[in-house]
Amino acid sequence: MSNRKQIKFGALIHGVGGNVSVWRHPEVPVDASVNFEFYKLQAQTAEAGKFDLVFIADGLYINEKSIPHFLNRFEPITILSALAAATSHIGLVGTLSSSYSEPFTVARQFGSLDQISSGRAGWNVVTSPLEGSAKNYGKAEHPSHDERYRIAEEFLQVAQGLWDSWEDDAFIRDKESGVFFDPDKLHTLNHKGAYFSVQGPLNIARSKQGQPVIFQAGSSESGKKLAGKVADAVFTGHENIKEAKQFYKEIKDNAIASGRSADDVVILPGIGPIIGATEEEAERKYEEIAGLVSIDSALNYLGRFFEHHDFSQYPLDEPFPDVGELGKNSFRSGTDKIKKQAKEQNLTLRQVALRSATPRGEFIGTPRKIADLIQQWNEEEAADGFIIHTPLPSGLKDFVEQVVPILQERGLYRTEYEADTLRGNLGIPFPANRYTTAKNTAAVNG
Amino acid sequence: MSNRKQIKFGALIHGVGGNVSVWRHPEVPVDASVNFEFYKLQAQTAEAGKFDLVFIADGLYINEKSIPHFLNRFEPITILSALAAATSHIGLVGTLSSSYSEPFTVARQFGSLDQISSGRAGWNVVTSPLEGSAKNYGKAEHPSHDERYRIAEEFLQVAQGLWDSWEDDAFIRDKESGVFFDPDKLHTLNHKGAYFSVQGPLNIARSKQGQPVIFQAGSSESGKKLAGKVADAVFTGHENIKEAKQFYKEIKDNAIASGRSADDVVILPGIGPIIGATEEEAERKYEEIAGLVSIDSALNYLGRFFEHHDFSQYPLDEPFPDVGELGKNSFRSGTDKIKKQAKEQNLTLRQVALRSATPRGEFIGTPRKIADLIQQWNEEEAADGFIIHTPLPSGLKDFVEQVVPILQERGLYRTEYEADTLRGNLGIPFPANRYTTAKNTAAVNG
Repeated sequence: MSNRKQIKFGALIHGVGGNVSVWRHPEVPVDASVNFEFYKLQAQTAEAGKFDLVFIADGLYINEKSIPHFLNRFEPITILSALAAATSHIGLVGTLSSSYSEPFTVARQFGSLDQISSGRAGWNVVTSPLEGSAKNYGKAEHPSHDERYRIAEEFLQVAQGLWDSWEDDAFIRDKESGVFFDPDKLHTLNHKGAYFSVQGPLNIARSKQGQPVIFQAGSSESGKKLAGKVADAVFTGHENIKEAKQFYKEIKDNAIASGRSADDVVILPGIGPIIGATEEEAERKYEEIAGLVSIDSALNYLGRFFEHHDFSQYPLDEPFPDVGELGKNSFRSGTDKIKKQAKEQNLTLRQVALRSATPRGEFIGTPRKIADLIQQWNEEEAADGFIIHTPLPSGLKDFVEQVVPILQERGLYRTEYEADTLRGNLGIPFPANRYTTAKNTAAVNG
Repeated sequence: MSNRKQIKFGALIHGVGGNVSVWRHPEVPVDASVNFEFYKLQAQTAEAGKFDLVFIADGLYINEKSIPHFLNRFEPITILSALAAATSHIGLVGTLSSSYSEPFTVARQFGSLDQISSGRAGWNVVTSPLEGSAKNYGKAEHPSHDERYRIAEEFLQVAQGLWDSWEDDAFIRDKESGVFFDPDKLHTLNHKGAYFSVQGPLNIARSKQGQPVIFQAGSSESGKKLAGKVADAVFTGHENIKEAKQFYKEIKDNAIASGRSADDVVILPGIGPIIGATEEEAERKYEEIAGLVSIDSALNYLGRFFEHHDFSQYPLDEPFPDVGELGKNSFRSGTDKIKKQAKEQNLTLRQVALRSATPRGEFIGTPRKIADLIQQWNEEEAADGFIIHTPLPSGLKDFVEQVVPILQERGLYRTEYEADTLRGNLGIPFPANRYTTAKNTAAVNG
């Protein structure tokens, strides 16, 4: 065994799927996106596989062209809280937008989830790519991409400040004397910034992991900068190991440039393994899933990244059309990549649409092949771990039962949880309370 | 048995208690307000007693003078979602402020709780009494009392409109044809009002109870008007049956004046029963609880209703001081009542402070006496049911084990849940989807 940390795993639970048509597969419960028993079973399967976390994605705008899962799905804070009661060790991470929320409420809700779950909460800070979100929140317009990231950074400062309102030993709770807390250990934030003005203190204390774990998932330049500066973990997506290694190095470099250690941020690319007893069986499974997608729904899905642009107006078998700057203020890194690949590889619209609707990835094959790839990505510094999002729900069970044991045998993955907090299992530092630290520093220097 | 509906019960779960010093009692776990096992046990006790609902109160501002429970407690949406996974029949009702939230988020979170719990969610719409809340939400000032109620009314219109985004049979989910939903049954709200502008549609469908149950808890004139107009249930508080009857009649009259039926709104006064095998034992229990309160903490508690006014500056044994209009824009009905009683009964500051810190109420005595009072309040139209908030956690167990069986024997209270939704158990109407209704009406008239 090397000195490297063990591999980390998260499970993205996403109802009827991120794929536009996978709900048509015989094994997918058609109501999965609002079926609590489904979510509970997936979370418990991941926990049986000693996964670090489950991950719930989110969005704030739909229209009739949205993919099935997005139309009618659980809201992250509520489903994660319910899963807290149905699990005991696994981390509970969810997306919540810093562009359309109030820091006091978000800090409270994640703080409360962190207490309910005894230190297993994580918040994936997103800036909301979809322009339509503004219309659901009474805003004249969606803030620009760069502004959304400036808002996110200040939002996070406020939330983290509020989380430190109470020092860890603030509560005395002495029945005899009647002293409930030490007022010297209660702190008022008094934040006044460009976007937020929040007094505090927060009405919930820190959990035993100190503060909820911060995830970041944006891959644009602003996203990568923010990740290096503040994220404990990054959920990303790559087509191949080369791209993943470059991203990995960039984030770790950004972390170091921000005065942090490379180990302070855990990089978790998303992968969608399709596992078969043989290569052929795995290929058959992929073909079965890909075959469910009609070209119409693939065009629809593609359109979502480009501000719900209507791609059905272009000829299918001619080069990918020039759509100008569409999508620049929403899924910037995603649309840039699609356009670049289409140009470099001379792809037709049909090819681009089907590729994005059923991304293939490398992780298709036997359990051993998938374990080998995971080991390679980890050893070559392309990933500290992975967010597993199998197209079919049974894929998670297959992964836990067939891939996990191989990695355990190789000593690359835990056989038991090391810690009882998300932070502890991810192996990232415990954030000391800023006020306690300030006092201790003063005492040492004084 | 009369034709009257059976009595309804809710359990207010409130950690270390609404009483300023009850946490000092030997039986209270000092971390109860952030102890999930405590909340789970209380909810399961209430469910064993076939209660209609558990209720979680809330607030958005603390300072060092706040009572212990308020300082560090679970946020309602998160704790209710966790309790959804730990219970199967009981309703899950929580307070959320319409003055400091976004309708799209609130509609989603309660909609999601309603789906997770299969139709057991309820939202207690409050306007946030505490002026300090504004400072935690970047607002220059707390809106006036009347304006808060205007905001609440529009907020609720938006939330209820969003909840109807999907008609009940909108999801076709036919794997063969690939049709997931019927676009004619998806509706965009396009609300543009004085306070909110929200497009929709909401990205979650209705649960089997149609929409979350709406609670209202304000007792000011604006509160009572709103309750008559829109509330499915009212959580209120009264010192005696006379006052309760008057309030009951007023709300039912307001409902009728708004074109609703008196049965459409369920009136639930809060009571804090203290149960003993004998009258003397019950009195001893009360004295034990009251004796935990120091005069300093009682003055502190009183101050909270008057914008955290410092009452320690006045002589204790002289008439209650004139504090002018303090509290008029926060707990209006509460402060009016305190001032009125102090004047009418010639109370000293000490008496007023101790009374509000340990309200006594009528419901102290043997199980039979308490059952008799409950029956009387119900039969004389002072209450359709009650929110039980016993000062000590064991009080809920006592109530379920000793009072509930008497009421069941008398045929006044269920021995099994009649329905599997909160709405069904409360016996209030199922709200048909407005768009479906509109179509049916058009079809009938067309």
